[in-house]
Amino acid sequence: MNYGIVGWAIGRVLWVEASLMIFPVAVALIYREAPINAWSFLITMVLLVICGALLGRKKPVIDKLYTKEGLVITGLSWVVLSFFGALPFFISGQIPSLVNALFETASGFTTTGASILTDVEALTHSMLFWRSFTHLIGGMGILVFTMAILPRMGDDTVHIMKAEVPGPVFGKIVSKTGSTARILYIVYLGMWALTVLFLMLGGMPLFDSMLHGFGAAGTGGFGIRNGSIFPYNSAYIEMVLSIAMILFGVNFNLYFFLLAGNWKAVFKNEELRWYLAIIAGAIVFISYNLKDLYGPLTERLRHVFFTVSSIITTTGFTTVDYATWPMQTHIILLLLMFVGAMAGSTAGGLKVSRIGILAKNALSELRRVREPKRTLVVRYENRAVMKSVTDSVLKYLVIYCIVFWGLVLLVSPDVPNFVSSFSAVAATFNNIGPGLGMVGPIYSYNDFSDFSKVVLTIGMIAGRLEIYPILLLFMKHTWKRY
Amino acid sequence: MNYGIVGWAIGRVLWVEASLMIFPVAVALIYREAPINAWSFLITMVLLVICGALLGRKKPVIDKLYTKEGLVITGLSWVVLSFFGALPFFISGQIPSLVNALFETASGFTTTGASILTDVEALTHSMLFWRSFTHLIGGMGILVFTMAILPRMGDDTVHIMKAEVPGPVFGKIVSKTGSTARILYIVYLGMWALTVLFLMLGGMPLFDSMLHGFGAAGTGGFGIRNGSIFPYNSAYIEMVLSIAMILFGVNFNLYFFLLAGNWKAVFKNEELRWYLAIIAGAIVFISYNLKDLYGPLTERLRHVFFTVSSIITTTGFTTVDYATWPMQTHIILLLLMFVGAMAGSTAGGLKVSRIGILAKNALSELRRVREPKRTLVVRYENRAVMKSVTDSVLKYLVIYCIVFWGLVLLVSPDVPNFVSSFSAVAATFNNIGPGLGMVGPIYSYNDFSDFSKVVLTIGMIAGRLEIYPILLLFMKHTWKRY
Repeated sequence: MNYGIVGWAIGRVLWVEASLMIFPVAVALIYREAPINAWSFLITMVLLVICGALLGRKKPVIDKLYTKEGLVITGLSWVVLSFFGALPFFISGQIPSLVNALFETASGFTTTGASILTDVEALTHSMLFWRSFTHLIGGMGILVFTMAILPRMGDDTVHIMKAEVPGPVFGKIVSKTGSTARILYIVYLGMWALTVLFLMLGGMPLFDSMLHGFGAAGTGGFGIRNGSIFPYNSAYIEMVLSIAMILFGVNFNLYFFLLAGNWKAVFKNEELRWYLAIIAGAIVFISYNLKDLYGPLTERLRHVFFTVSSIITTTGFTTVDYATWPMQTHIILLLLMFVGAMAGSTAGGLKVSRIGILAKNALSELRRVREPKRTLVVRYENRAVMKSVTDSVLKYLVIYCIVFWGLVLLVSPDVPNFVSSFSAVAATFNNIGPGLGMVGPIYSYNDFSDFSKVVLTIGMIAGRLEIYPILLLFMKHTWKRY
Repeated sequence: MNYGIVGWAIGRVLWVEASLMIFPVAVALIYREAPINAWSFLITMVLLVICGALLGRKKPVIDKLYTKEGLVITGLSWVVLSFFGALPFFISGQIPSLVNALFETASGFTTTGASILTDVEALTHSMLFWRSFTHLIGGMGILVFTMAILPRMGDDTVHIMKAEVPGPVFGKIVSKTGSTARILYIVYLGMWALTVLFLMLGGMPLFDSMLHGFGAAGTGGFGIRNGSIFPYNSAYIEMVLSIAMILFGVNFNLYFFLLAGNWKAVFKNEELRWYLAIIAGAIVFISYNLKDLYGPLTERLRHVFFTVSSIITTTGFTTVDYATWPMQTHIILLLLMFVGAMAGSTAGGLKVSRIGILAKNALSELRRVREPKRTLVVRYENRAVMKSVTDSVLKYLVIYCIVFWGLVLLVSPDVPNFVSSFSAVAATFNNIGPGLGMVGPIYSYNDFSDFSKVVLTIGMIAGRLEIYPILLLFMKHTWKRY
């Protein structure tokens, strides 16, 4: 472990977080909130600057960045970001328990959207802003953000991005990582601005529009009203958010292709087709199963479209209590939680491309068992899938299952029934937010013990970073000095 | 598809089933039951002989057996065996619904032990005998049985055994398949006889001892009293059954080694160590979690030892309603259901060797992510695991997951809660029997719709035959004539 480079990078991350807290301070001033609010951010900023300076006080001599260091930096960044990001909630007293504040903030940065708040409307504007703003920051990864601003570590930063950008395949579109990240952010913020605009056109206030835009952009899903999107009771707003969520669940490489005028690459994209097909299939299946609810078909489609978009993109906004839907729809929703949206998007879950590669491999294995002598090639995105990719996807699934069940086991002492533990882990590990049972849309994560909250926090971060960066932190060998 | 050889083999299987029905007829006569009981078996036997003769009326010219035909014969055998085996229950009127009779019989042949009966004591002795006897038959596989009696298809029968004997690794101990199967049966029946003997020493009547012996030998778990093993209320009997179940969950290759005096191979067996370690770990963990139940430690250990042995070996005998235990123990029990016992035993589930190979691969993948340039070899049973073995284990897991969730989705309209659908599938697909929720130890599978019962029946057979033989039956290409 190259401690120098790790400390230096984490230090920079802390500085970035400090500068981002200027925004909630501004919100506190604009809304003339009690001084404690602005001060809680300012105190945290001072702490961040000091710690950042201590960690990154000198540029490391060896600035080569290896995979291990990249993964460790990524993993640690999310842990420290969540810790310091939680302080304003704690200092201001608006979330009096530090564990709760940590859970809420990690939920924000990991774009999960799981909340321990039972009355979200009790928060002040600045706190609501910071809470949702973490979605925007987390969405594309604070590390990529850091690199877009501080593109000084050269081409080795691709190691960090590899850990950061979710999904099995990582394509470098533009040659310099710095420019890639910058274009990424322009697209990202542009789409966010459009979402805000369209929400305002539906009569949603600017503040609400911005924050829900954060939630959609990061596929996070923190609402700012009790009942999430339901209180707005507007089919138009729900439609805007549904479409926004689906678009933020698309691989951002495809937007690069669009910018370059390469429409063909988008239309021929296999993952996109799977993604849209799964969404359409889930909508048809669930709508059929809800035929005795919600009267007219349009009303039913409205709720189903919103819920499916929200779950598969791992956002977690809600308009209805889907926990009251029939059992069979719950299984579909749980499966959507595992699928997640496309690789290279802001969504969590296993990702559609992995599911596609796994499904195709399963089919080819069946053929191989039947005719052992035939040579079979699995094709994905019109290319033969390399054995190394298949291999790593398969092994990722194994590790995913092991961690998943470990988490279920750890939180199970707190829950009243199996669906609660299973869906609480499914909803946090896949970064969705609301689950079923005691973590259903109308409940919060408040009833878990502190121990379980910490476990789920680790689960959220592990799920967000595709597990490895967090698991490595727990391995002794990782910390060996060179 | 070589229809000639498939028809011929299935015909022979039907004849074997007909001859096995002589035993329940004898039981009906010994207990002087109403004539309908003996007749229901005799009528079925006539049907079996006629159908067998029609299918196998001439020895096929080409008697080469390829993998595909082997798999299809295996899959079809279990379907037709279950169908004809269900007829006596139906004809005698003791299970008036044909779907129920089919479910019960498939549950027997697949050594699942899931029952639709709410009052098992209402069955006559001959029916109880046949019901449990299917465990013994199913236990080591009726096809191996067929081959031990009719070893005329030469060395190609290994294709059938490959599909039959569960687990990822298939070792031919003795050179001729016929002799392997014969030794296998001598060991198997000898162990069964010992179990019966020890049960009788505890005061259990001969009839009860034989039938519970069938249940333990096949790791099936049909009881013959309401409340499974509980009514005997004997710590000695429970201990005998626990040990018997664990021994029948051991890879039978190890008994061959013992017979050959090769103790070292047994003690050095890695899978055996994992198996015993998992059992010990589960007992310690669950006992700790039950510290507020059952008073003295010995009482607690008695129930936990029995339940853990019963679940991990996928037998499903019960002495207590573990559904009343705390949530966390449920997660452990569910996980044990997926683990199953050792490969090459009569148990269901994923098998300990697969779990071992998967876990070791997961660990090696973590190391590879940390240091991409290191070459890592996964070792299992003191040998480097071949890539092809790892590959097929990984892909098996994918197919296993897909089929598992497909089954959960199909049965979900019938169930009141998630744990019921999840555990009903876990308990049937892994061939355990009792699950949690509406299929907990004190309930039966009677409340499912006919559709779900058929789905679960297919699930039981698919799980028993390690999925492929049943999936192939649903693929159009399989049925193409040469």
